Amino acid sequence: MSSIKVGLLGLGVVGGGTWKVLTQNAEEIARRAGRSIEVTAVAVRDVAKAKRLVGDSVRVTDDAMQVLRDPDIDIIVELIGGDTLARTWIMEAIAQGKHVVTANKALLAKHGNEIFAAAHAKGVMVTFEAAVAGGIPIVKAIREGLTANRIQWLAGIINGTTNFILSEMRMRGLSFEQALADAQRLGYAETDPTFDIEGVDAAHKLTLLASLAFGIPVQFDKAHIEGISTLAQDDITHAERLGYRIKLLGITRRREDGIELRVHPTLVPVDCLLANVEGAMNAVLVSGDMVGPTLYYGQGAGELPTASAVVADLVDVARLEAADPEHRVPHLAFQPDAMQDTVVLPVQEVRSSYYLRVRVQDRPGVLADIARILSDSGISIGSMFQQPHGDTEADIIFLSHEAREGAVDDAMARIRALPFVQCDLTRLRVESLT
Amino acid sequence: MSSIKVGLLGLGVVGGGTWKVLTQNAEEIARRAGRSIEVTAVAVRDVAKAKRLVGDSVRVTDDAMQVLRDPDIDIIVELIGGDTLARTWIMEAIAQGKHVVTANKALLAKHGNEIFAAAHAKGVMVTFEAAVAGGIPIVKAIREGLTANRIQWLAGIINGTTNFILSEMRMRGLSFEQALADAQRLGYAETDPTFDIEGVDAAHKLTLLASLAFGIPVQFDKAHIEGISTLAQDDITHAERLGYRIKLLGITRRREDGIELRVHPTLVPVDCLLANVEGAMNAVLVSGDMVGPTLYYGQGAGELPTASAVVADLVDVARLEAADPEHRVPHLAFQPDAMQDTVVLPVQEVRSSYYLRVRVQDRPGVLADIARILSDSGISIGSMFQQPHGDTEADIIFLSHEAREGAVDDAMARIRALPFVQCDLTRLRVESLT
Repeated sequence: MSSIKVGLLGLGVVGGGTWKVLTQNAEEIARRAGRSIEVTAVAVRDVAKAKRLVGDSVRVTDDAMQVLRDPDIDIIVELIGGDTLARTWIMEAIAQGKHVVTANKALLAKHGNEIFAAAHAKGVMVTFEAAVAGGIPIVKAIREGLTANRIQWLAGIINGTTNFILSEMRMRGLSFEQALADAQRLGYAETDPTFDIEGVDAAHKLTLLASLAFGIPVQFDKAHIEGISTLAQDDITHAERLGYRIKLLGITRRREDGIELRVHPTLVPVDCLLANVEGAMNAVLVSGDMVGPTLYYGQGAGELPTASAVVADLVDVARLEAADPEHRVPHLAFQPDAMQDTVVLPVQEVRSSYYLRVRVQDRPGVLADIARILSDSGISIGSMFQQPHGDTEADIIFLSHEAREGAVDDAMARIRALPFVQCDLTRLRVESLT
Repeated sequence: MSSIKVGLLGLGVVGGGTWKVLTQNAEEIARRAGRSIEVTAVAVRDVAKAKRLVGDSVRVTDDAMQVLRDPDIDIIVELIGGDTLARTWIMEAIAQGKHVVTANKALLAKHGNEIFAAAHAKGVMVTFEAAVAGGIPIVKAIREGLTANRIQWLAGIINGTTNFILSEMRMRGLSFEQALADAQRLGYAETDPTFDIEGVDAAHKLTLLASLAFGIPVQFDKAHIEGISTLAQDDITHAERLGYRIKLLGITRRREDGIELRVHPTLVPVDCLLANVEGAMNAVLVSGDMVGPTLYYGQGAGELPTASAVVADLVDVARLEAADPEHRVPHLAFQPDAMQDTVVLPVQEVRSSYYLRVRVQDRPGVLADIARILSDSGISIGSMFQQPHGDTEADIIFLSHEAREGAVDDAMARIRALPFVQCDLTRLRVESLT
């Protein structure tokens, strides 16, 4: 069978990794795919630098349109990132009838509906295994491995930077700022780490996972997002005492009345596998009504793990490009005409357990007043402890049973207004993941 | 699109589960597959009993040939188990040009080469996600998710019965016999548990995983198999003291000179995720040269989890049946003409670290004599401790660095011959899984 021809847009970390994987494992890949996968053109800004990597056998240009319109190219691999140029180029590739492989979660989380609709109309595939959890085949697992199930919920550690920071804070007792500086020094965090630490990157990925799991359109703007930059070392210690570890989770859950879609620091029981995923690793726990809980773990970022996912997509496209488009795996796991516009619930409607820390003047009656407010709001308490803070203050830590977030908001507003409450309350969500 | 027609052979635990999944999640499955999956005929021994489950809308017969030769049926689902009738019926289904979905690991581990060759010649698919690790989509992950990688090794907890027994022995301090009795009482172990506890079931599954990972023919007869029935409670405690947990692992590894293929109780570091997989759960750790380590976790058995995998295969076949056979995913991950006949190494050539326990008369010079033998055999010791046993005896426990198993065999024979050695030695393999 003839080789399949690939045009590569971008030759940065993941682009360079893709080149390496295709070159170094060419034989193993062809043994599986039944044909070779050949990069015939590369579009980059710095042509001279790219030539040093790929040599003279491949056409290198700084004009992406030349690659996009090359009639000999079957698949465009977009690895430039961002959502302006990348969007234009992917739409052009689709218009030219080419299949697209991309790792661009930000683009798909925001413009996926438009892109997948265009691809469907044109009968081409847009694949994105590399966009979520790097080398872990999680898109494939949900889209193809769990097709028998009504998926109930999923929860994932899908940002390695924040998981690394949280591991460092817990294991070495560092503050957030110290752990972030370490992560930057070791290359786990960018110079501007905002997208990672504020949960935006995780929310991009979660948005895609929710669509795959539930057959709903991509809707990043509905996601509730909280990062880890305000997390105090104290709360990590208190959580540990209660039998929990704090992880930045992306959680999406199907309920009677809609879908929860949220990224936030979460207390997870220590004996749960997710709680034991340390450093820059990723893991996603998916619960299906028939299969029960399943977990997928691996490296969620980096040159070669991410390229592993890009190349797996290339093999899939090489295998399926001859198939009738009606018979291919649908982009978002469900057939386009079977998507449902289930409402994504506002965060006030989320149900969770809660960890609350209140700093108070240490005097009689304080606990009773707070407990009364919680009870009046219908929030029942599972466990509680008090920890002195200096000579005159104390932290009171509550772990609630499941409650509606709106009710917790109301109670917090009333507690905040109490005269002996010293500073803002800390509220973290707790998930049993069962 | 018209529905795809399925004939079901067997309506036991997994067959009944498959019926339930297809019935209860019919809508969700059709939303994904783009067409409905319809069971039109069932072949069973007890027709009356089957009718009570499936009702009157489905043809129920005790004549499997009638189902196998029904021209309206597209896919045969074989769920009767065993390797005599099942083999005949699957070969007949293939001869009739029907696709086959099976959960039959024993059959495929022994006769897979013949079955896949017949299917390839006829242009039909034989899928077997349910044969390995129940509901976990591990076949798909290796065959399609990790296609960019040269897989280096994999290690799995792929038998829930033995993992349950080991968890009980460790957590509740039970003997093997007590834990087995519990497992039987709770339905995790069969009345005749031999296949599970002696590692045969795990070896069936490992044989299939090794073929998928390395592109070698299925060769169950080359697997080295040890079970857990002789495992002493003492060794679990000693392992814990050394920082390890004992798991029955299936391990296969690609080396320069061939492939290791082995099932045996294994000491695994406690901070490794595999060590924390408890009860009847399954997990497989796969290491690829590009992606690094990835792990897949979930329920490895049971009515609905196994049926989840059967139905995922049905959806795959429904999607791919219209595709040119040349473009489908190959049965054993690699194209038939790209399989390699790499040698499977005899167990004496395996390299591992070893846990050795020697019971001796407690007197001076004993340790020196044993240490001398190990050193003469080129086996270097990582850690060692001695534990009194009664008034006059002691257990000496050694943890070796990596050594060739043949060398360890020689050393053990010489140690066994020492006059002060009291009974047979215990030797367990240790894997760092990195």
